[in-house]
Amino acid sequence: MSRIIGENLNHIPWQDKPEGYNAPVWRYSHNPIIKRDAIPSSNSIFNSAVIPFEDGFAGVFRCDSKSVSMDIFAGFSKDGVNWEINHEPIVFQGDEEVIKREYRYDPRVCKIGDRYYISWCNGYHGPTIGLAYTFDFQTFHQIENAFLPYNRNGVLFPRKIGDNYAMVSRPSDTGHTPFGDIFYSESPDLTFWGKHRYVMGTIDGDASAWQSKKIGPGPIPIETDKGWLLIYHGVINTCNGFVYRMGCALLDIDQPWKVKARSRNYILGPETLYECVGDVPNVTFPCAALTDAATGRIAIYYGCADTVTGLAFTTVDELLDYMEKYPLEG
Amino acid sequence: MSRIIGENLNHIPWQDKPEGYNAPVWRYSHNPIIKRDAIPSSNSIFNSAVIPFEDGFAGVFRCDSKSVSMDIFAGFSKDGVNWEINHEPIVFQGDEEVIKREYRYDPRVCKIGDRYYISWCNGYHGPTIGLAYTFDFQTFHQIENAFLPYNRNGVLFPRKIGDNYAMVSRPSDTGHTPFGDIFYSESPDLTFWGKHRYVMGTIDGDASAWQSKKIGPGPIPIETDKGWLLIYHGVINTCNGFVYRMGCALLDIDQPWKVKARSRNYILGPETLYECVGDVPNVTFPCAALTDAATGRIAIYYGCADTVTGLAFTTVDELLDYMEKYPLEG
Amino acid sequence: MSRIIGENLNHIPWQDKPEGYNAPVWRYSHNPIIKRDAIPSSNSIFNSAVIPFEDGFAGVFRCDSKSVSMDIFAGFSKDGVNWEINHEPIVFQGDEEVIKREYRYDPRVCKIGDRYYISWCNGYHGPTIGLAYTFDFQTFHQIENAFLPYNRNGVLFPRKIGDNYAMVSRPSDTGHTPFGDIFYSESPDLTFWGKHRYVMGTIDGDASAWQSKKIGPGPIPIETDKGWLLIYHGVINTCNGFVYRMGCALLDIDQPWKVKARSRNYILGPETLYECVGDVPNVTFPCAALTDAATGRIAIYYGCADTVTGLAFTTVDELLDYMEKYPLEG
Amino acid sequence: MSRIIGENLNHIPWQDKPEGYNAPVWRYSHNPIIKRDAIPSSNSIFNSAVIPFEDGFAGVFRCDSKSVSMDIFAGFSKDGVNWEINHEPIVFQGDEEVIKREYRYDPRVCKIGDRYYISWCNGYHGPTIGLAYTFDFQTFHQIENAFLPYNRNGVLFPRKIGDNYAMVSRPSDTGHTPFGDIFYSESPDLTFWGKHRYVMGTIDGDASAWQSKKIGPGPIPIETDKGWLLIYHGVINTCNGFVYRMGCALLDIDQPWKVKARSRNYILGPETLYECVGDVPNVTFPCAALTDAATGRIAIYYGCADTVTGLAFTTVDELLDYMEKYPLEG
Amino acid sequence: MSRIIGENLNHIPWQDKPEGYNAPVWRYSHNPIIKRDAIPSSNSIFNSAVIPFEDGFAGVFRCDSKSVSMDIFAGFSKDGVNWEINHEPIVFQGDEEVIKREYRYDPRVCKIGDRYYISWCNGYHGPTIGLAYTFDFQTFHQIENAFLPYNRNGVLFPRKIGDNYAMVSRPSDTGHTPFGDIFYSESPDLTFWGKHRYVMGTIDGDASAWQSKKIGPGPIPIETDKGWLLIYHGVINTCNGFVYRMGCALLDIDQPWKVKARSRNYILGPETLYECVGDVPNVTFPCAALTDAATGRIAIYYGCADTVTGLAFTTVDELLDYMEKYPLEG
Amino acid sequence: MSRIIGENLNHIPWQDKPEGYNAPVWRYSHNPIIKRDAIPSSNSIFNSAVIPFEDGFAGVFRCDSKSVSMDIFAGFSKDGVNWEINHEPIVFQGDEEVIKREYRYDPRVCKIGDRYYISWCNGYHGPTIGLAYTFDFQTFHQIENAFLPYNRNGVLFPRKIGDNYAMVSRPSDTGHTPFGDIFYSESPDLTFWGKHRYVMGTIDGDASAWQSKKIGPGPIPIETDKGWLLIYHGVINTCNGFVYRMGCALLDIDQPWKVKARSRNYILGPETLYECVGDVPNVTFPCAALTDAATGRIAIYYGCADTVTGLAFTTVDELLDYMEKYPLEG
Repeated sequence: MSRIIGENLNHIPWQDKPEGYNAPVWRYSHNPIIKRDAIPSSNSIFNSAVIPFEDGFAGVFRCDSKSVSMDIFAGFSKDGVNWEINHEPIVFQGDEEVIKREYRYDPRVCKIGDRYYISWCNGYHGPTIGLAYTFDFQTFHQIENAFLPYNRNGVLFPRKIGDNYAMVSRPSDTGHTPFGDIFYSESPDLTFWGKHRYVMGTIDGDASAWQSKKIGPGPIPIETDKGWLLIYHGVINTCNGFVYRMGCALLDIDQPWKVKARSRNYILGPETLYECVGDVPNVTFPCAALTDAATGRIAIYYGCADTVTGLAFTTVDELLDYMEKYPLEG
Repeated sequence: MSRIIGENLNHIPWQDKPEGYNAPVWRYSHNPIIKRDAIPSSNSIFNSAVIPFEDGFAGVFRCDSKSVSMDIFAGFSKDGVNWEINHEPIVFQGDEEVIKREYRYDPRVCKIGDRYYISWCNGYHGPTIGLAYTFDFQTFHQIENAFLPYNRNGVLFPRKIGDNYAMVSRPSDTGHTPFGDIFYSESPDLTFWGKHRYVMGTIDGDASAWQSKKIGPGPIPIETDKGWLLIYHGVINTCNGFVYRMGCALLDIDQPWKVKARSRNYILGPETLYECVGDVPNVTFPCAALTDAATGRIAIYYGCADTVTGLAFTTVDELLDYMEKYPLEG
Repeated sequence: MSRIIGENLNHIPWQDKPEGYNAPVWRYSHNPIIKRDAIPSSNSIFNSAVIPFEDGFAGVFRCDSKSVSMDIFAGFSKDGVNWEINHEPIVFQGDEEVIKREYRYDPRVCKIGDRYYISWCNGYHGPTIGLAYTFDFQTFHQIENAFLPYNRNGVLFPRKIGDNYAMVSRPSDTGHTPFGDIFYSESPDLTFWGKHRYVMGTIDGDASAWQSKKIGPGPIPIETDKGWLLIYHGVINTCNGFVYRMGCALLDIDQPWKVKARSRNYILGPETLYECVGDVPNVTFPCAALTDAATGRIAIYYGCADTVTGLAFTTVDELLDYMEKYPLEG
Repeated sequence: MSRIIGENLNHIPWQDKPEGYNAPVWRYSHNPIIKRDAIPSSNSIFNSAVIPFEDGFAGVFRCDSKSVSMDIFAGFSKDGVNWEINHEPIVFQGDEEVIKREYRYDPRVCKIGDRYYISWCNGYHGPTIGLAYTFDFQTFHQIENAFLPYNRNGVLFPRKIGDNYAMVSRPSDTGHTPFGDIFYSESPDLTFWGKHRYVMGTIDGDASAWQSKKIGPGPIPIETDKGWLLIYHGVINTCNGFVYRMGCALLDIDQPWKVKARSRNYILGPETLYECVGDVPNVTFPCAALTDAATGRIAIYYGCADTVTGLAFTTVDELLDYMEKYPLEG
Repeated sequence: MSRIIGENLNHIPWQDKPEGYNAPVWRYSHNPIIKRDAIPSSNSIFNSAVIPFEDGFAGVFRCDSKSVSMDIFAGFSKDGVNWEINHEPIVFQGDEEVIKREYRYDPRVCKIGDRYYISWCNGYHGPTIGLAYTFDFQTFHQIENAFLPYNRNGVLFPRKIGDNYAMVSRPSDTGHTPFGDIFYSESPDLTFWGKHRYVMGTIDGDASAWQSKKIGPGPIPIETDKGWLLIYHGVINTCNGFVYRMGCALLDIDQPWKVKARSRNYILGPETLYECVGDVPNVTFPCAALTDAATGRIAIYYGCADTVTGLAFTTVDELLDYMEKYPLEG
Repeated sequence: MSRIIGENLNHIPWQDKPEGYNAPVWRYSHNPIIKRDAIPSSNSIFNSAVIPFEDGFAGVFRCDSKSVSMDIFAGFSKDGVNWEINHEPIVFQGDEEVIKREYRYDPRVCKIGDRYYISWCNGYHGPTIGLAYTFDFQTFHQIENAFLPYNRNGVLFPRKIGDNYAMVSRPSDTGHTPFGDIFYSESPDLTFWGKHRYVMGTIDGDASAWQSKKIGPGPIPIETDKGWLLIYHGVINTCNGFVYRMGCALLDIDQPWKVKARSRNYILGPETLYECVGDVPNVTFPCAALTDAATGRIAIYYGCADTVTGLAFTTVDELLDYMEKYPLEG
């Protein structure tokens, strides 16, 4: 038995595991929870992040517009399932050069101390990691981009590691990147970043081919008594394109670039019509997880086919047991 | 309020816009109107053109055979929805060298004066623009190919511009062309073509990414009191392939290579199963539009997933307003 | 009227051709017969082979695991429709160097004399043709790989041709091979192979474009009084990926590298959701055929979208007539 | 013995064929005749055209600048070997839209009637064929681009064919085109072009692999009593890039799209350091030929390694005999 | 007249500009100064950096071994022309994880305060920017990699900008990167880096095509009274590969991400045999520049064809005048 | 000290190693020994094989014609340096289907028993390994192709291994293959081949990057008291193309698929103009080696830049010592 280190969240969205279901993550029965046209201007809403806020939840949503322009929008929910998403994208305060918008997508939200930090893929002469904070999801303060281009999927840790802030990310190129490993970086001040360490990469050969093309971090790492539980995405390249699935890993609590366990099996992959059919077929892409320390429950929010947003459930024990049962051997 | 300059067509296929639907083009509720196996030999029927003819409608249909050979077939309908398509492809009269068939696809039909002109992508040592005319959709006279290879989507204007016939087209390469802009050309006699002018091209960056990879003209331009209304296709390149959507533009009435307005937002894109799933997933490709000057109604015929044929509705005001509301800024 | 040369199989799975259906191969009405999760560890089960065994049927199944590792599993059925597949992959006996497993996929099963031979795509520093035999589907003896890498789809003939064993195969490269022709090879002893002959290749141009990118042999060739009936797969490359369909050919009975007839039209292609949607959309890939000499019935087992397994029916007369009606001209 | 139909040019640059040399075209012994830095601004001077003019010669030269901007420059010579090239590029008169300069390269010069016509690869939203005329090589009048993009190597015939002007060209794509055939087009007025005919293309397989990747016309066709003598370039794709060589063909005098003979062997290829080493290694690219009807002598001007300009010699009999001796079959 | 801000270096290697030479940079007459086999183990020595040291010069050299393994070696010279290079590569002190060697190449050397800093392309699960310092070119202390992969050409400024260390670099991908812009970054401590700013990128179109594919910083920026003088490399993609040339730019002295001037023309490109022929043809790649404040002289060390090392000369006035004479317009 | 097991060849071409030369293989001082135009029809002569014959030498030469058609020609020499090559290609006797010529290149010659066997890259619906034998280099008997396509560089062992003939080869694809490992195969009769074993492949990373893209066997393996000495080619992929160098390995005498030693360093690479400049720059490609058991001398014949033929010298001790000094570690 393992334990989530964090707050209780007794109103976490939840459904019990279906009878006879033999995988560690199960879908919400009314998926997708957010349709492609949930706001008037949207072509698609997916790869989005949510977090407990006040007595309910807040979120930052990737809404591609009907011009297929990518931006991020705040939204609110009482129950984590039914969402009201703003009709206008987030406007950031900050340095004039930094807040210039090229495009914004794939947000994550992380509470550190008294602030909610947003990280996202930010266009600055190429994709890099944008950073901002808010206290209220009304006013957002953008700070320096964390890294040089080209990077995607910058995911903050929910507390400092030693004296420094910490982030995992996936360095990329300028296009539909055909490679991708996960790296760890630290910062004393969220402005200057360094002490970069390799965490883990793709798996060659047949042992775990679902993650043979690229991998990247998903939701904010979940602190447990066994280490940081990282849910991530992995990609295989078929003759008809990429398939994005989810896996998980357990990182050392003090030196998170050291991998203690990693799933050989994916934990969720495209199987339903809303995951297999859409603007980009065959994508399940996790960007957020709610957790309840009291029960070990985890609710995963994930983009489906780059078109809609799904919800899935698991527990910390399900994931840790699954990694133990199907370990990825060196 | 704007006005279509043309004939009335009181039997235009039509359904009113559904309640609460917030896009400018809406689908026929019984789509697809033509199934993939509508004739015995067909693998798929899509990217086809129709026109008012006698007291009903005639059309030229792309029917890929069960050997996946591409050819064009005449067909007839009383109501524009239920079609009888010939079981044998069109046989052309004309110069022996010119009528040699390599392949034929993506036809358009345009009435100029007393004749119905067919233009299509014609294999002549590479794809180029084939041209023919008929008076009766029984006998077809093929004339010279308009251009050198490599070209696709040659679309005639329904009357002369100044003293010359006019055509827009999309120069291409020999394969799955990864680029594509729209050009305008003139001809005094439909044999010799020149005075080529650039009309418009793809949009870089994030502003209108659905048309960032290639664009090409769709139905015969619709004459309005504001200019030529051009419905066209635009393509984005995702990591899992191309997505084809529709947009529209308004061209100067006398100098149609000058763009007066252009939609930043797409007006229709793949969302239904029959548009997202098929031989080529995620394609909506318009090739014809019926118009009724009396009401401003427009019925768009479009290929779905390179497999079946769909029908969608709009009005001239819907499109012009939408361009005005969501303008593409230079 | 033509005749299958072989045994009767009165319990062959069967449904009559639906009324009004105008193609030579028709689907089983309860497809897919094997779901992706038919065994606990499987991500997908497809591209598999079956054969009459004892009073029912045995098979060798490609089950990709939830780590997307590819291996082959034995299975058994009373009726050819409902299958019990082992939960553990086949373990081979044999030379230590040869039985080392990199990956195994796309098996075929062929009875020659008293033995059931398994051939499959076997990873040995690249894909090549693995070979093994069993008497009982319990113990499997692996022998030498037939060829140097890189090869896929090695398919044995069910008896010697002249004094030698015979195999057709599709030489490949190391990736998602963009080419592919069918070759014939002989062996005196199933260890040393030679006398390689070209059988047939892709078709350029428009005449039969469904087989323009690559082709490869499918089920064990069916001996008939007209020659060897070979069901094979053919691939076209669209702008959104490969589409795999089935065709058939008739090979000379004594010199099987000589093609007597070949289908211009495909005989089955992806049309249903389970064929068009899945890990690799738009794949129908035949790996086995049961035959009943008494009636000429043929039951084809084929992989669907690299995800599930389908069953389809035809007869030797349907296929021979179809080739005659739609011949591929040189 | 064959005969050039044209004017005498007794001051044609000339050297006799070296003793023992067994190829049909031989290099000038002081090559290159134009160095890369022959004008102050030039990075390279190559792929250029010359013509008899007044009592000497005039030419239009491709001079890439030290910013590697491509433009064309007029130049003059008494002897055809020593050239004075203007230090400023040609400035064209004409329609404002047409004379806008994107880039200009690979000029040809052709005298028809009282005018010298220049054709070149002209950037107009992609490469196409620019056209202009001059009487004096001082003032240049640009007319309409001949074709839609994408095209390169537009080469005029030196007189009308029937009632029309005639041109051969090589349709292309937007980049380093990996294909290329030669087509023929006609125009009544040099503004509108049509009656496009395929002339000849690349040669598959081993028979003439130097022209297996692309071919394109070179100098103005030379009228002879046997037909039009066309010198062209052919390209092979090696693992280390393209190699450009020269060949020749004989076209029907009245229907120049009909090929009467064509060289299986190249007539000149990169062998010397100045042809093999430079900005683009391994290029010999002919753009002009001077001819002397009295003697049958031909002086070929060709670009070397996209860096300097070379001169080579042959005769009409050398070329026609060589084609006859080494004919391209089938 | 402009002035270098820095130390005098009266023994800077030097030759006066040749008579009649019309470019701003001229080659040393005895180039290459370092041959490919200058040390016993070397396949090639190029892309190397030198700096005044004690009464002569020290350097760090990229010596690819005869196994084509890439490493960096210290070397010494009295005159800057004749070099003694160590036979063993540099061994670094430092954190165990950081000093692990995958590969090392393309070093730069920069004196800041009392230390000589080395930066280079360092293999750490992909190319990134390695950093180390030495006092004596005997003992080298490696510190943290500056950035996440993938990056090349990290070039330090020779003093702090404001309160921070500063570096320009060229983010890359994992292979023969087909893109490349120059970015600026700051660090308070040489461990953590941030405040990344875009400096300048490639030039589309024809205006300055030699730098149309990628650009990257070369030697340590030279401080002048007009701003930072940055010599950089620019690359064009021809049909036969990349050509690497040199250009220069003038950056704002306090905000070096602001470009005050930039050369439209290259200042040196491959022309000689040792630049055009070698392991990678057509490369001139500058990595170091010696400067003499007293005279404004600059001696540039550059790699030639990835095989040998060349030396070239210019002055600060030559470069500033050349940029002014041939400005790159917006 | 090691010993060649074989015959003495006291008239082996030879020059002593130059003073101060520090590599294990040195070039003949009058290279290239065969020019590109050594026979009237040749564009280039390279990648050729020689063998002692009667009182001198015979050879089989790859002569690409002036149509760049690839074929193989017999030739003769008294001294191994000056060669008379037949003007007509070899004509083979044999089975009609097998002797059909598509193309032939890169021959090797191997004496086994009383016959001289020729192996080469033979076009049979793709490249494979052609085999023939001759007693006199006048009459050549072609036997079955050894393997299915696609394969290149089939190299026989000069005696049986155990009871079987043996060959190493490099499986390939249909183009400029971007991969390549060496495999070993056996045959009881030179018709049927099997018992394929992996020998060795490319080296990832930095350790021996000259052989990181592909490798393939070169001359007939040389029997020594330490094992089979195999000289092979290795290729690196630079941004400007492939570079082909030579290395060597020592294979187990009875199980030649077991590698006892392998050179980390290349033993010869392109450095001279005739190796770096030509139809394919930067190629040194060994196809034959003469050996003298009395002295341990080895004379290597190698193609240079796919254009001419070079000769280089070494000894068995040079190569074995070099492998020992610079071993490739696992």
